[in-house]
Amino acid sequence: MSKGQETKERILSEALDLASLVGIEGLTIGELAKATEMSKSGLFAHFDSKEDLQIEVLETASALFIENVITPALREPRGKPRVRALFERWLAWETLRSGGCPFMAASFELDDRPGRVRDALVATQQDWIDTLITAIRIAIDEGHFRSDLDAAQLAFEVYGAFMAFHLYHRLLRDPKAHQRATEGLERLLACAK
Amino acid sequence: MSKGQETKERILSEALDLASLVGIEGLTIGELAKATEMSKSGLFAHFDSKEDLQIEVLETASALFIENVITPALREPRGKPRVRALFERWLAWETLRSGGCPFMAASFELDDRPGRVRDALVATQQDWIDTLITAIRIAIDEGHFRSDLDAAQLAFEVYGAFMAFHLYHRLLRDPKAHQRATEGLERLLACAK
Repeated sequence: MSKGQETKERILSEALDLASLVGIEGLTIGELAKATEMSKSGLFAHFDSKEDLQIEVLETASALFIENVITPALREPRGKPRVRALFERWLAWETLRSGGCPFMAASFELDDRPGRVRDALVATQQDWIDTLITAIRIAIDEGHFRSDLDAAQLAFEVYGAFMAFHLYHRLLRDPKAHQRATEGLERLLACAK
Repeated sequence: MSKGQETKERILSEALDLASLVGIEGLTIGELAKATEMSKSGLFAHFDSKEDLQIEVLETASALFIENVITPALREPRGKPRVRALFERWLAWETLRSGGCPFMAASFELDDRPGRVRDALVATQQDWIDTLITAIRIAIDEGHFRSDLDAAQLAFEVYGAFMAFHLYHRLLRDPKAHQRATEGLERLLACAK
C-alpha cells in the first residue's frame, strides 16, 4: 500500500468514528479537519466533495461489515447455524463502535434526502438483505426450514429483531436487549420449521 | 384557549413538521424562526431554550400519538383485536407526516446525547412499550394468548416488526413493506397462542 493510500485509510477510519457520533450528515470536510488535525485543503486532496467523503465512509463501513459479520458467518455450516451466526455477529457489530451501527443511524438520517449518498446506502442495505435471504434459502434447501417458507418475509422479521435490539440497547439501555433479540430470533427460527 | 396558547400550539405544530424533516437536533430557534416567519425574540417569548422547544415538540408528538393511535385502539375489544389495532394504527401513524414517525428519527439522533431531551424521549418510548405490554397481558387474560407468554418479549418483537416496516417503507421504498409488517404481526400473534 502506498503512503497516500495508507493516509487515506487512516482518514476514512477516523471519519467513520466521527460519523458514528455526529451522523453521516454531520460529517463535513470542516468537522473532519478538526478531528484529524489536518487542513481542509489537505482533505480536499483525498475527497472532491462532502458527498464523496460520505460515500467513501459508507464503503469503509461496508468493508468492515463484510470482514466482521459476513465472512466469518459464511464459515459456519450451511442452514440454520449460518443464519444464527449472521444474526449473532450483526448484534456484535452494533456494539463494535461507540456510536452503534453506522448504517442504522444513516438510514434514519437519509431516508428523506434523495441523492448519491442515499443511493449508496440503499445499495448496501439491499445487499445485506439479499445475503440474509440467501442464507435462509440455503436453510430451506438443507431441510432446516419448511419448503414453502417465504425467505424474504423471514429476512424482514430478522431485520426487525435487530432493529428492536438497537433501540432497546442504545436508547433504552435495557440490559435484557441482547437476550430479547436472541430469544426473538429463536422464535422466528422455530416458527420457520 | 387564549390567543397566546393558540399561537403557541400553531408554532409547535410547525416545529413538529420541521423536526420531522431536519431532525430534532436540527430544530433550533433560528430554523423555526425562518419556517414560521417569526422573529427569534418572538419565539423566545414562548420557549426559554432550544431544549425547551425540543421537549415541547416531543410532548406535542406524544399528544398526537395518543389521539391517533392509542385512544381509538382502546375502543377495540379487549385482547387480540386491540393488539392488532394498536399495531395497525402505529403503521398508519408512520405515514401521517411526510418525515415519518418523529420518535423513530429522534431515537437514532439522541441515543448518544445524554440530557433532558433524551430523557423525555425515553419516557415516551417506555410509556408506549408499557401500553403494548398491558394490551398483550389483557389478551393473555382473555385466553387469546397462552398463559405463560412473556408479554414484554412479545412487545419487543412487535416493536421490531414496526421498525422493519419503517426502514423498508421509508429507506428502501419497498411497496410490500406494509404487507410484510402485517404478516409479521400475524405470525407473532399465531406463535403467541
